[in-house]
Amino acid sequence: MTTTPHTMKAAVLHAIRDVRIEERPIPPVRPGHVRVRIRTVGVCGSDVHYFTHGRIGPFVVESPIILGHESMGVIEDIGEGVKHLQPGDRVTLEPGYPCRTCECCKSGRYNLCPEMTFMATPPVNGAFVEHLEWPADFVFRVPDSVSDDAAALIEPLAVGVWSVQRGGVKPGDAIVVYGAGPIGCTTLQAAKTAGATTLIAVDLEEYRLDLIRELGATHTINARHEDVLARIREITRRNLPESHSGADVVFETAGNLRTCQQSMLAARPGGVVVLVGLPPNPQVELDLVAAASREVDIRGIFRYANCYPAALRLVEEGRVNLDRMVTHRYPLDQAGEALSFADEFKHVSMKVMVDV
Amino acid sequence: MTTTPHTMKAAVLHAIRDVRIEERPIPPVRPGHVRVRIRTVGVCGSDVHYFTHGRIGPFVVESPIILGHESMGVIEDIGEGVKHLQPGDRVTLEPGYPCRTCECCKSGRYNLCPEMTFMATPPVNGAFVEHLEWPADFVFRVPDSVSDDAAALIEPLAVGVWSVQRGGVKPGDAIVVYGAGPIGCTTLQAAKTAGATTLIAVDLEEYRLDLIRELGATHTINARHEDVLARIREITRRNLPESHSGADVVFETAGNLRTCQQSMLAARPGGVVVLVGLPPNPQVELDLVAAASREVDIRGIFRYANCYPAALRLVEEGRVNLDRMVTHRYPLDQAGEALSFADEFKHVSMKVMVDV
Amino acid sequence: MTTTPHTMKAAVLHAIRDVRIEERPIPPVRPGHVRVRIRTVGVCGSDVHYFTHGRIGPFVVESPIILGHESMGVIEDIGEGVKHLQPGDRVTLEPGYPCRTCECCKSGRYNLCPEMTFMATPPVNGAFVEHLEWPADFVFRVPDSVSDDAAALIEPLAVGVWSVQRGGVKPGDAIVVYGAGPIGCTTLQAAKTAGATTLIAVDLEEYRLDLIRELGATHTINARHEDVLARIREITRRNLPESHSGADVVFETAGNLRTCQQSMLAARPGGVVVLVGLPPNPQVELDLVAAASREVDIRGIFRYANCYPAALRLVEEGRVNLDRMVTHRYPLDQAGEALSFADEFKHVSMKVMVDV
Amino acid sequence: MTTTPHTMKAAVLHAIRDVRIEERPIPPVRPGHVRVRIRTVGVCGSDVHYFTHGRIGPFVVESPIILGHESMGVIEDIGEGVKHLQPGDRVTLEPGYPCRTCECCKSGRYNLCPEMTFMATPPVNGAFVEHLEWPADFVFRVPDSVSDDAAALIEPLAVGVWSVQRGGVKPGDAIVVYGAGPIGCTTLQAAKTAGATTLIAVDLEEYRLDLIRELGATHTINARHEDVLARIREITRRNLPESHSGADVVFETAGNLRTCQQSMLAARPGGVVVLVGLPPNPQVELDLVAAASREVDIRGIFRYANCYPAALRLVEEGRVNLDRMVTHRYPLDQAGEALSFADEFKHVSMKVMVDV
Repeated sequence: MTTTPHTMKAAVLHAIRDVRIEERPIPPVRPGHVRVRIRTVGVCGSDVHYFTHGRIGPFVVESPIILGHESMGVIEDIGEGVKHLQPGDRVTLEPGYPCRTCECCKSGRYNLCPEMTFMATPPVNGAFVEHLEWPADFVFRVPDSVSDDAAALIEPLAVGVWSVQRGGVKPGDAIVVYGAGPIGCTTLQAAKTAGATTLIAVDLEEYRLDLIRELGATHTINARHEDVLARIREITRRNLPESHSGADVVFETAGNLRTCQQSMLAARPGGVVVLVGLPPNPQVELDLVAAASREVDIRGIFRYANCYPAALRLVEEGRVNLDRMVTHRYPLDQAGEALSFADEFKHVSMKVMVDV
Repeated sequence: MTTTPHTMKAAVLHAIRDVRIEERPIPPVRPGHVRVRIRTVGVCGSDVHYFTHGRIGPFVVESPIILGHESMGVIEDIGEGVKHLQPGDRVTLEPGYPCRTCECCKSGRYNLCPEMTFMATPPVNGAFVEHLEWPADFVFRVPDSVSDDAAALIEPLAVGVWSVQRGGVKPGDAIVVYGAGPIGCTTLQAAKTAGATTLIAVDLEEYRLDLIRELGATHTINARHEDVLARIREITRRNLPESHSGADVVFETAGNLRTCQQSMLAARPGGVVVLVGLPPNPQVELDLVAAASREVDIRGIFRYANCYPAALRLVEEGRVNLDRMVTHRYPLDQAGEALSFADEFKHVSMKVMVDV
Repeated sequence: MTTTPHTMKAAVLHAIRDVRIEERPIPPVRPGHVRVRIRTVGVCGSDVHYFTHGRIGPFVVESPIILGHESMGVIEDIGEGVKHLQPGDRVTLEPGYPCRTCECCKSGRYNLCPEMTFMATPPVNGAFVEHLEWPADFVFRVPDSVSDDAAALIEPLAVGVWSVQRGGVKPGDAIVVYGAGPIGCTTLQAAKTAGATTLIAVDLEEYRLDLIRELGATHTINARHEDVLARIREITRRNLPESHSGADVVFETAGNLRTCQQSMLAARPGGVVVLVGLPPNPQVELDLVAAASREVDIRGIFRYANCYPAALRLVEEGRVNLDRMVTHRYPLDQAGEALSFADEFKHVSMKVMVDV
Repeated sequence: MTTTPHTMKAAVLHAIRDVRIEERPIPPVRPGHVRVRIRTVGVCGSDVHYFTHGRIGPFVVESPIILGHESMGVIEDIGEGVKHLQPGDRVTLEPGYPCRTCECCKSGRYNLCPEMTFMATPPVNGAFVEHLEWPADFVFRVPDSVSDDAAALIEPLAVGVWSVQRGGVKPGDAIVVYGAGPIGCTTLQAAKTAGATTLIAVDLEEYRLDLIRELGATHTINARHEDVLARIREITRRNLPESHSGADVVFETAGNLRTCQQSMLAARPGGVVVLVGLPPNPQVELDLVAAASREVDIRGIFRYANCYPAALRLVEEGRVNLDRMVTHRYPLDQAGEALSFADEFKHVSMKVMVDV
């Protein structure tokens, strides 16, 4: 029915810092699936990490892999039984789909499914390609008012929405976000949509703190120059002794040992710490007693579940600004350069996009 | 220590539609309490109901009573042991305080305490007075950026915040508010602060629908001219059969038999109906099967618990606009006229304030 | 691979009270599915209702249908990709499976899926047959210590487990179950496993009250002879005024107008009413104000989700007794008689089984 | 009204391992309070720790203190306004009462109140005395069927009930308890009342493992002889890859570095770890990534809130056995010996009681 050619371009990672543009067959469309003409893909920190290290924890790049999982495009073909999408629809792709039959899937936490197929996680290929086939129920139509870039960046926003849901943010809450990178920015904005009124961001880079202030932070703290905990306690102080100051919910997105340790102390008694980032070494020495004896809950997150519809509505209604996060762009032919740049220029960039 | 005179003015309801200005003794300040020089008080629908009917359900006005429970003022004296307030502080008063020792109080639902002392609920006097003594922990300092009117109207906002908390509104939700009066307006705004992106208001008065649209409603439905359910289903339709359209959370604030019945059908399967208003007759004929067989939860609310701090922060940060709701004002001497006006001119007014 | 014959016996409902034994083709086994040699099937109230009325609400028997959905048997063949089951395994079948791709399914509430395939709900055939093919993930292996009857009756127990989960029963709670039929018995037992210590059962039949007392009820009330509400208030009275007595959670399983009305008053302020049964007419006149103004939540249930594994473990560990509920049995050839008996002899029977 | 003498005996800790029997004035009874003739007091690990170390973390014994906080007795006098208790009532005392006016108290988490008054926590005196005055709402009448010992041990059971509530144990869950001491025993029993069907206890002492098996453990693991994690994975294996085995909820009650570390790995993806005990040093090196990346929640507990009524009902109904935990007893005159014994003979004792 469609008249697409038989092969397409793809940016393939062969080894550390070795990305090649190659021809790959265009995938056919199975029942219940759609094929998307990819238009824009965001570069994520995990893509950069595979590019520079060839692995993330237990996931090792053992054969050539296509990176990229923050993607959007246009439907070009739909498989049998697909009803809610049509060729020509502008869409965003949720990059992982589960087995649909295990306990995790049936109980609504499909992100924990042991049989997850997730883009750009070895050995599954990602979205730095021209055409991609995907299960239709993990592909979402994008309203006209949402830009292409914002559509691709629904993915990092989904992380923020899930983090905020796991953290239980409520109207009037005070929250802290450690790390003002892309995930910090989406998490802070998601927390604001859930009603947080005191939004504190902590980072080392003035560039990023300036940007997150534009996106809604009410207070920013540069950890190079200020006593972070003292500032948080001062900002969050209520009608209680100083021992009971602290944020209602703390989000650690920096993936850093020290911020991870500090987050335990930045939460008020009865508060919550959400570990969005993860420290580089699994073994972390922390003041667990300070958390546990004050009933501070520690909750990790692994990707997200059922967050794309809400994330799309938040952008559509102007509650979250994803466009402001895009600072640089590259064509698909220069996917390797995009990854290099994202690795080296964090202090002057936020989000790098690859246009297909 | 203070040099206030021994008596003060109070607006006292003696019988239906009979409010008299009288002299009453100025209350002394007990330990743990404060005395507030009242400045502004909102007129609530329940005040109007006592004024016009002399009762609300089981609560009957049997002896003269002072109405008014949406109040703010300035601290003029503090009792022994009070630390977080000082004379001169601008404050808002949470109008009910509980016994502090029963199961309800100790488990955080003090609004259900059987020994509640609540302003302007017979036989407890309210705030249409010059001076009022109250427990310090139910008196909250007001930030400079919050106006006097807004400070008094924290009370109806607390109802909205509690309703939204009971309803479990989440970012991206679609909500319906039946009734665009003061409680409808605070509930819709509270739902918006919790992340609702589709906010549908239903009323019969164009005046009120216009105002609630200014305050954040994305859709308004005039029940005189439109098929309300059909419109709600159309607005909330997702990638599911029409049977599965409907709002995530429906708030009934109109206190009307028909809206109460309809709210069951306006919620999606698995959704929630929050009954904020109550129909005039306790016996209500409704399609309980339509709710129960679709796992639509029905939750009532009775006042609120622990909502003042969050409500104040929401107003301080500009997330909720209470000033826009004030349409008319009267001096304390004309409290009776204020009640009369609020009773008769609902179609051209929203909130009437009494300045003390 | 298997050598089963090509046809099998099935009990088919052709019209009201007209069940015929017919030959039907034995179903093949598709990938991800298993075929089960059915051994025992419980007769449910809904089967009886189709038998006597030809419909349940919107579900109408328009062409011949096979009833029965509380079933167990032995695996005789497995489809491609099935790993957790093998021929010879004794199993119980969860009688409904969903589309797996809609919002309901992906968020863990697959019982609300609009595309549900549910046994013995027109036009889907049920388990009064010799062989049945079913998706493997809705078929559960049965431990040796669980009898055939108990395996089949996991289905009504799943209703009880779901009701208790929806009701939020906690250790030390007082609960009331209206209706001491099979669903009342499984719900009361499930509430006991969740820690309820005061377990009150209400019915009209002494036979059923005796049986539920054996199964764990601490108090039984015969509504023919006693003032039900007065007794409940007396039993559940705590250190609070009488207005605050009542059960923490009330389960209405009788599907009766009066018990439905009364359940609102039998719950304490802040308590929960779970509507497990549904009154015969959708329009119900109730004292909604008594529920809403006391913050009594009303929650319906529709079947269950993710309850089979827990239900099986509860029976395996002896926490729930399903065998005691079986009072009568018939062979498949007499399925019609079984349905007739279950319809007419409720006062002297609890659960009727059909042996295949 | 009562004719008690003016002084009473008390066991006072003056320095490490220095307990003296002294005369102290009998306290008068203030409004809202009661005075209890103490009968039996359990020796808790925290009492032993003050006895042997003179401090627990930030709490230092700086002046003589009376230990003991697991107490019961008989009401001998009641203060003005006390209605639910009478002289002669057998009662158990919840050992801490809060300020009742702060955010923690008003929101139902009074255990986090910064102004808590808690028995035997310096400088507050405890229950190794003949008479004790206490707020009436933290004193609970004991049913006849509950023994004196069990009444005193409601306190450690309250810790178990709170832990189970914080852990969210549901019917059918698999749980692990690290540490089979008194708190391990009450926690495991509380988990059983909430429906856990697989109850695994881990300890080093065969004596304690034998006892906890009597109290409901379905599996015991001696960490001296077995590979604990391998056993837990084997016992909790479901229809999922081994990576997804593990308990639904893990309780760490041993207060040990290694068990604290291991508990993160013993929970299934999406499971919960409740830290009931606390390791001796606040800085703990743990595999936080293993917890966070599998969405295993880590929740500490600090005492309990609102657990006494439920704990009493569980004992009254025979769901929990506290009497079996009592292994040794001493008179008040030998309180020092009781503390010494409890310190040195953990391997052959469970609970030591002091009779007043």
